[in-house]
Amino acid sequence: MSSSIGENLRLTIFGQSHSAAIGMTLEGIPAGFTLDREELARFLRRRAPGRNAWSTPRKEADEPEFLCGLVGDTTCGTPLTAIIRNTNTRSEDYELLKRVPRPGHADYTAEIKYGGFQDASGGGHFSGRLTAPLCVAGGICAQYLAQHGISVLAHIRSIGEIQDEGDPLTSVADKDFPALSDEKGERMKALIAEVRAEGDSVGGVVECAVTGLPAGLGDPIFGGMENRIAALVFGIPAVRGLEFGDGFEAAKMRGSQHNDGYRMKDGRVTPVSNHAGGILGGITNGMPLIFRAAFKPTPSIARTQQSVDLRTGENRELNVPGRHDPCIVPRAVPCVEAAAAIAVTDALLGWRNPEIKA
Amino acid sequence: MSSSIGENLRLTIFGQSHSAAIGMTLEGIPAGFTLDREELARFLRRRAPGRNAWSTPRKEADEPEFLCGLVGDTTCGTPLTAIIRNTNTRSEDYELLKRVPRPGHADYTAEIKYGGFQDASGGGHFSGRLTAPLCVAGGICAQYLAQHGISVLAHIRSIGEIQDEGDPLTSVADKDFPALSDEKGERMKALIAEVRAEGDSVGGVVECAVTGLPAGLGDPIFGGMENRIAALVFGIPAVRGLEFGDGFEAAKMRGSQHNDGYRMKDGRVTPVSNHAGGILGGITNGMPLIFRAAFKPTPSIARTQQSVDLRTGENRELNVPGRHDPCIVPRAVPCVEAAAAIAVTDALLGWRNPEIKA
Amino acid sequence: MSSSIGENLRLTIFGQSHSAAIGMTLEGIPAGFTLDREELARFLRRRAPGRNAWSTPRKEADEPEFLCGLVGDTTCGTPLTAIIRNTNTRSEDYELLKRVPRPGHADYTAEIKYGGFQDASGGGHFSGRLTAPLCVAGGICAQYLAQHGISVLAHIRSIGEIQDEGDPLTSVADKDFPALSDEKGERMKALIAEVRAEGDSVGGVVECAVTGLPAGLGDPIFGGMENRIAALVFGIPAVRGLEFGDGFEAAKMRGSQHNDGYRMKDGRVTPVSNHAGGILGGITNGMPLIFRAAFKPTPSIARTQQSVDLRTGENRELNVPGRHDPCIVPRAVPCVEAAAAIAVTDALLGWRNPEIKA
Amino acid sequence: MSSSIGENLRLTIFGQSHSAAIGMTLEGIPAGFTLDREELARFLRRRAPGRNAWSTPRKEADEPEFLCGLVGDTTCGTPLTAIIRNTNTRSEDYELLKRVPRPGHADYTAEIKYGGFQDASGGGHFSGRLTAPLCVAGGICAQYLAQHGISVLAHIRSIGEIQDEGDPLTSVADKDFPALSDEKGERMKALIAEVRAEGDSVGGVVECAVTGLPAGLGDPIFGGMENRIAALVFGIPAVRGLEFGDGFEAAKMRGSQHNDGYRMKDGRVTPVSNHAGGILGGITNGMPLIFRAAFKPTPSIARTQQSVDLRTGENRELNVPGRHDPCIVPRAVPCVEAAAAIAVTDALLGWRNPEIKA
Repeated sequence: MSSSIGENLRLTIFGQSHSAAIGMTLEGIPAGFTLDREELARFLRRRAPGRNAWSTPRKEADEPEFLCGLVGDTTCGTPLTAIIRNTNTRSEDYELLKRVPRPGHADYTAEIKYGGFQDASGGGHFSGRLTAPLCVAGGICAQYLAQHGISVLAHIRSIGEIQDEGDPLTSVADKDFPALSDEKGERMKALIAEVRAEGDSVGGVVECAVTGLPAGLGDPIFGGMENRIAALVFGIPAVRGLEFGDGFEAAKMRGSQHNDGYRMKDGRVTPVSNHAGGILGGITNGMPLIFRAAFKPTPSIARTQQSVDLRTGENRELNVPGRHDPCIVPRAVPCVEAAAAIAVTDALLGWRNPEIKA
Repeated sequence: MSSSIGENLRLTIFGQSHSAAIGMTLEGIPAGFTLDREELARFLRRRAPGRNAWSTPRKEADEPEFLCGLVGDTTCGTPLTAIIRNTNTRSEDYELLKRVPRPGHADYTAEIKYGGFQDASGGGHFSGRLTAPLCVAGGICAQYLAQHGISVLAHIRSIGEIQDEGDPLTSVADKDFPALSDEKGERMKALIAEVRAEGDSVGGVVECAVTGLPAGLGDPIFGGMENRIAALVFGIPAVRGLEFGDGFEAAKMRGSQHNDGYRMKDGRVTPVSNHAGGILGGITNGMPLIFRAAFKPTPSIARTQQSVDLRTGENRELNVPGRHDPCIVPRAVPCVEAAAAIAVTDALLGWRNPEIKA
Repeated sequence: MSSSIGENLRLTIFGQSHSAAIGMTLEGIPAGFTLDREELARFLRRRAPGRNAWSTPRKEADEPEFLCGLVGDTTCGTPLTAIIRNTNTRSEDYELLKRVPRPGHADYTAEIKYGGFQDASGGGHFSGRLTAPLCVAGGICAQYLAQHGISVLAHIRSIGEIQDEGDPLTSVADKDFPALSDEKGERMKALIAEVRAEGDSVGGVVECAVTGLPAGLGDPIFGGMENRIAALVFGIPAVRGLEFGDGFEAAKMRGSQHNDGYRMKDGRVTPVSNHAGGILGGITNGMPLIFRAAFKPTPSIARTQQSVDLRTGENRELNVPGRHDPCIVPRAVPCVEAAAAIAVTDALLGWRNPEIKA
Repeated sequence: MSSSIGENLRLTIFGQSHSAAIGMTLEGIPAGFTLDREELARFLRRRAPGRNAWSTPRKEADEPEFLCGLVGDTTCGTPLTAIIRNTNTRSEDYELLKRVPRPGHADYTAEIKYGGFQDASGGGHFSGRLTAPLCVAGGICAQYLAQHGISVLAHIRSIGEIQDEGDPLTSVADKDFPALSDEKGERMKALIAEVRAEGDSVGGVVECAVTGLPAGLGDPIFGGMENRIAALVFGIPAVRGLEFGDGFEAAKMRGSQHNDGYRMKDGRVTPVSNHAGGILGGITNGMPLIFRAAFKPTPSIARTQQSVDLRTGENRELNVPGRHDPCIVPRAVPCVEAAAAIAVTDALLGWRNPEIKA
């Protein structure tokens, strides 16, 4: 099923952009885990729109209501469901989107797939708004992982041609703009302002590090940490690429450069470098797990675009109304953390110490 | 489960490099499909080692034996299992790999994961040899798709720094070296010969196009064509990155460049470009589906590398014996086709015309 | 995952007896299906408590709120979630149930399983109240099946020693008491009144017929219609047994009695009898699918029972407060229909015409 | 997928009665488990035909060949595949079964389902022969459970009208005829001989006890031990009913009779009776888990039966050739043990101690 995922932790995401509510159900979080609601609210705020100049001025109330799965703030072991009410429902341009699909959005493909019955309003189930329940799930998982000594740390790697600089193992959670380097961040914000002024948008790359992982997590073939993370990360709208460790750069390298040798260090087996991004054969090696996700430029732009009228079969010029994020990347940072946290929690919950017979 | 995958088509891959046999079971291929065994043999030969100068001289008999699922050459609707016998079993260096893990391989991570009980011989279940049953499954799926007018066409995109050139919608199945451009192919072969002479290895990128897809295939969120293809492609050893359409380049672009406008063409809704790689919102739009997978350089190199002795906890210098592919990329081309064919067949078998009420 | 089920139709049930809400998400109902909300309300009313003398006088507002998945009353193809608010939350006897488990309930086993963190209030996630979202899902599926000419018809087969009589292919949906025979129904009601007066409870059997099924539905081995129905029916609390066709009686029969011969009838292959209950090899044969589910007596009784104090480790006599159904069977009839409708819809959505090559 | 099952332990069964081989793949058995092949052979022998007067004189070599998943006799953690060659392939009466379906078999339903492409020979994938790989998997699981102090003990409960007597927690593994009471066993054998002489067959009931289970195993709603066991047991051909604890008898009882009170005994919470069959709310309570499966009489009988010619659409009288078990029940005993062992192992592998925060 396309809107649910996971083996040991099962996440189901539901809702449309303009339905009564959106939400998520999480099965498999162990009983006895106490949720810090304040921390979750802080996490969700990092994704929320309208916080500042470089994002859309629309306001969304992302406050989740927990329907079940908790006694007080502590999990009771059965499914945990949280919903977020949509205040902005059934917009008037509903029929237009079904007739004249926006380039770069799912309007056309969903219209075909659902035989004309899709809920196109606001992008329906394909809307970026659905990353809010993803972040509820991911924020819970991140807290669970933190209790096991595991941190998930994403940051902007690039926006357009501007590359970030700094130590990828640093948290940007408390920063207004989630770049490692403040100076590069300023340049990125300037670029976003520039493309906004041009009625355009720009893409970027989010990098994520997971630290504190034990060696031995993950499974061979289709159960590798890459497969698990890919399954989640490609669920974030606008992701066009994903790479682990040296990623596409590895394709240009020699084996003698890329292989991470081993040395004993403080009595522990330690790779001397981390070209592998912490994964060998799908299984963690104890080094930080590193990956990057490429986001395309926001498809909603304030320019006239080519489209067609699906009803009349005529070409149409389309102006998408409303104000939109000229760059989704800053708000995508916590979404990538959420996706990684869910994938890692699922793997961790399935992890068992191997049987050792005397 | 890590060694099986799929919703409507379920693939299970089993075996270790040096076990009695490796193989695969495919559930869900409809009854009444007639397999062309010759065509499958040709497909498998593209993956087989030892064919020529640029690959390893080891010989593998990749002839699959079909145990069930067929009556004659026609599927009967129940699970189809094929096995390939391993002629090269239980090598003498078994204990060494468990004690002194090879950099870049799963030796260390599998030793930890399985608590010392892994089958390290020849790489065990993590061996590239396990792509043989993947290709059996993929070759069957490719034939099934061909009967529905769908082609899966992969080719080398780059090796090291050498980029291929040509039309990605061209088949290289009949070529000795699977590059689009013969001239670039010669340069790639020269590079491979060079790194081999240096006792080194080199990575590369495989590009794949799927043509003939109907619009409307795939699902939202976690069921997107990207998610489905990623789940398979990251099951091929040595894949470090995956991108769709413009991929990581999209992260540098403006929305006005990246969005594919629509025009009516021959009475059909047609995107005017294909930056999206044929997928919007996880669902096909009728354009060729395009993706690229980055392969790291073969970790087995003929050089002394740093390792440790897991038993004594001492540093060790390691020389990996045997002869290995200095570049896995040419043989990875059919593996990528196989992965894509399986993912697309799974999606196609789950595809239903939407319900339309009068 | 234990609270979700299904291959082609995925149902997730969430909530606890006294959490803010209970509910369900249904993925996979095709787009374009129009829900009759009135009919659904009528279906849910058959399960609702407090309707008459033979059931508990508690009142529950079982009105589902649809959060998403519909545009108006028509499915849009993405997950459909409905919730039911709990008005009766956090009872004061919460701690008591955790300490002194009620015989016949899950209090003790859940306390162990969840390490003391269960939500024991009102039975938590194990409460019969969770059959309300099951009936929401099942009521939707029953309407979907009806559009395909398939009816799901359950009725009381017995209560205590009193057997029902009549044609099992008859609907009792409009009856106040869901027995086929009104005369037997009166005797059953009298028995229920009697056991209530004694502070006791009584069990019974529900029989279900599914008519209008095409031949060829279901799958071999673990995908048989029996397996599919069992997976759902054993999800209803208090079910202790399940049998198909002649069921346990078949174990006493000779093959010559039990085998259903075939004859041509009106140009169609037709079994001459239906000992098989419409299923051979897990696959429907075109005859009505018939099964029976045995329900144990309601464990909540107004008598002093033996229990223990889990905290002090001392024996305790327990009097369960509150008023409860002395017989759950009449209200279980629509639950069994719901379970069957979900299982059959899942199978139907996975049904594909076999591939026939010329 | 219909021929594979399991969450934490994934079993796939493949093969047809007359294909080159049948077999099974088991994913998820932990690394480091040492298989006793002799014990497995003894287990399989209990299912093998032709052992004595009361079963079919056909001979089957049920010796499994392990293709992978072991190093020596010890699991290495990756998929374990075993196959059994079919010596009896492609019988001449192949076409007849497709044209003139045997009553009580899947011939007709499979012919419809697979659109004429089924492998009808010997019953294909629906043959009782497929219980051989089920028993390979179950025999492995039973050994795994034994190492955790859990025993799975099935025996004949009844054949025809003859009821067995004795303590259900006793092993009959070493007995020639798997009834608890030798005297009742003699009467059962006489009955089987009698029905054989009449060219007929007879059904029966198998009872199974699982002892040594910890309390707290299993999950709510669809993940109950009943659901898990049902999913496996209904995968055995000829099973028509399944009941837990008092089962269908519970439907006749009062709550005051059926509820199992609790008392402290040797410092442990202990139910004073076991009407529940060891399961409350789907979760084990520490008492023996007890269930019974009803088997229909073998459909293959040496009598003329009514059938039709599917090609000509004419009524036909059918005489099924060959010699068959007049009663499958004795050989079904290890199959039921296998099914239970697999279900319990799956649950056990998913069992985690709840998280307890200080």
